[in-house]
Amino acid sequence: MTVRESEVLDVERIREDFPVLEREFDGTPLVYLDNAATTQTPTQVIDAIRDYYLEYNANVHRGLHQLSQEASIAYEQAHDRVAEFIGAAGREEIVFTKNTTESENLVAYAWGLRELGPGDTVVLTEMEHHASLVTWQQIGERTGADVEYIRIDEDGHLDMDHAREVIDDDTAMLSALHVSNTLGTINPVADLVDLAHDHDALAFIDGAQAVPNRPVDVEAIDADFYAFSGHKMAGPTGIGVLYGKQHLLDSMEPFLYGGDMIEKVTFEGSRWNELPWKFEAGTPPIAQGIALAEACDYLEDIGMDRVARHENELAQYTLERFAEFDDIEVFGPPAGEERGGLVSFNLESVHAHDLSSIFNDYAVAIRAGDHCTQPLHDKLGVAATARASFYVYNTREEIDVLVEAIDDARDLFA
Amino acid sequence: MTVRESEVLDVERIREDFPVLEREFDGTPLVYLDNAATTQTPTQVIDAIRDYYLEYNANVHRGLHQLSQEASIAYEQAHDRVAEFIGAAGREEIVFTKNTTESENLVAYAWGLRELGPGDTVVLTEMEHHASLVTWQQIGERTGADVEYIRIDEDGHLDMDHAREVIDDDTAMLSALHVSNTLGTINPVADLVDLAHDHDALAFIDGAQAVPNRPVDVEAIDADFYAFSGHKMAGPTGIGVLYGKQHLLDSMEPFLYGGDMIEKVTFEGSRWNELPWKFEAGTPPIAQGIALAEACDYLEDIGMDRVARHENELAQYTLERFAEFDDIEVFGPPAGEERGGLVSFNLESVHAHDLSSIFNDYAVAIRAGDHCTQPLHDKLGVAATARASFYVYNTREEIDVLVEAIDDARDLFA
Repeated sequence: MTVRESEVLDVERIREDFPVLEREFDGTPLVYLDNAATTQTPTQVIDAIRDYYLEYNANVHRGLHQLSQEASIAYEQAHDRVAEFIGAAGREEIVFTKNTTESENLVAYAWGLRELGPGDTVVLTEMEHHASLVTWQQIGERTGADVEYIRIDEDGHLDMDHAREVIDDDTAMLSALHVSNTLGTINPVADLVDLAHDHDALAFIDGAQAVPNRPVDVEAIDADFYAFSGHKMAGPTGIGVLYGKQHLLDSMEPFLYGGDMIEKVTFEGSRWNELPWKFEAGTPPIAQGIALAEACDYLEDIGMDRVARHENELAQYTLERFAEFDDIEVFGPPAGEERGGLVSFNLESVHAHDLSSIFNDYAVAIRAGDHCTQPLHDKLGVAATARASFYVYNTREEIDVLVEAIDDARDLFA
Repeated sequence: MTVRESEVLDVERIREDFPVLEREFDGTPLVYLDNAATTQTPTQVIDAIRDYYLEYNANVHRGLHQLSQEASIAYEQAHDRVAEFIGAAGREEIVFTKNTTESENLVAYAWGLRELGPGDTVVLTEMEHHASLVTWQQIGERTGADVEYIRIDEDGHLDMDHAREVIDDDTAMLSALHVSNTLGTINPVADLVDLAHDHDALAFIDGAQAVPNRPVDVEAIDADFYAFSGHKMAGPTGIGVLYGKQHLLDSMEPFLYGGDMIEKVTFEGSRWNELPWKFEAGTPPIAQGIALAEACDYLEDIGMDRVARHENELAQYTLERFAEFDDIEVFGPPAGEERGGLVSFNLESVHAHDLSSIFNDYAVAIRAGDHCTQPLHDKLGVAATARASFYVYNTREEIDVLVEAIDDARDLFA
């Protein structure tokens, strides 16, 4: 296979932007493979945070003084930047929340609690993250709406025949992952959204594992709502995004109430502010929003096509290496099929938690657990899985270290 | 008056910790008097953020690898640090939210939406911030509960006779500011809490303008809930705190649903995690929580008694200087009475917004507007006020610049 120079990442150069990758534990260099939980932060983004606090820290919107003007402009433009990054029409469609989970809850509370009732169904998938699963279960319980689940097959794909069965005229909302944080499956979200729209249902797509890792165009997907987090895309903690079609956000009542989201308040009642501020009550995550815009710049400089190719390539290499061993069980789509940059697996006779702690001897950071998808793990018949997940700075050599550590774990526990 | 050395702040030294204060606009040094909106951030806190991203950025709770352990310990200890700072029993009582507004909404949704009904009243004050005012109005509308307001007198004090009238056996919740962000009034919150408890009502105290500025002991106040924000206390944006008595938080249903706040999830339902994580759904504000703990250290090193004394002294000096002029109207408690470190005022015949923009020529950053207390401004009979607010780095000389700017505004508009 010939790969054009322009198509591959200069990983050595990229790694220079992430000083944390130079850490060593007892002389062993860190191999950070927990990127689906949180990606590392490049100095460009750290500097954006620092510059904010050193140069123009101020509350936004409400101030006429220079510092507040500078902060307001930067914060508002950060919405434009994020809109552009995911193909949204403009800042009116971009609400900064604290994380993907709040984005999901915002829609569940502000739309679901008012619009759902007995007879309605909310359709999820069996691979859903707790962020949507628990939220819609609870809102369903309070409104009388039923929650139904699209089945997955043995390879971790959605059963689209079952989807066509479950999504029907009772369906009011479909909420689905774009990319599974456990299986790595890339779901056919545009098809799911079409199915939902065919039945006049709305569609919420959780893109927490997609926006950081591949080009995403919310308008091409035609999602009504789309959510993701800053800390999984080289950005800071403390910020998430909710994209919503403008006419929907316009027609919805607010979620959180307080300053900045109102236009007029009396002792009797209130009138709401314009979008997106109607959904950003109180002092927003100013430094975090500005830093998220910087993360978008950083990723776009690399090129999201190349990010996706790099991650898939690492995932395929991992599958290849794992295939050398009979006792490694891998979950999700088979080798050769494009997937998100992560591989969940178990080593026969070694518990995932034990694996993870042995990995510490190799300074290999992976995650072991249920990855916030307990029902999916029940379905897979395992309590936990180990998950290696990749980002722009990871290398094949690091995967070789992972495999070496697995070898060692086997020897220790066999 | 003799002031012991140990009682005054070494402002010159403190200012070295805040590089933003060295900014100049067209050669004029910044005079930052907008601290009630957002305080500036010392290098100690900025460095704590930077160190987090450079050294041990990782998702918390869910990881067994070293980075995640380091991040988890720091994040969890940040809860202990904040608990200690406000006299709470421990981390179980400290929920990290995104801002004070979310803290208020958390209680309104998780407790209010379930517990309130027709016949119940929620008692606020006429000086309430939109964060509680709009929130309880909306929750009241949805539950049938009435919202009532404790009157204020001409000097901006709560009318405690009226409080004893309004708080009665129908009262289910009292929500009151500890310190008014518009008037500077320090409310007798312990008395208000007592009144509420006498009638078996709960008491929520909004301490956004208190915790940054004076010693606060939530147990001495006996508040059931107490809220404040990081960015007003030398900490970062993107984090707020909800203190709640453990037995109350224990008995409450969660607010936001998602990962980390659950112990067990199936396709049918969930069991909640222990406190405080039950109320922290999704990836929390990790860097921000750790930085907030650093801000607590910073403020405690200065000494909260001294912070309060310094701010009151600056407020008194401002009142003194303003008293030289007939055409400056001042709101809130009279000179001589201890108040929060802020003074709201209007200059006869010059609109607050015009004032504020003229102040830009002097690089004086103050706030002009309704300070998220529109109903209070209606009551005061003004559309907007100008507000100068102080912090540990402000000086009398800066207030002299403010007065000079007012003089100039008068000349320009008279």
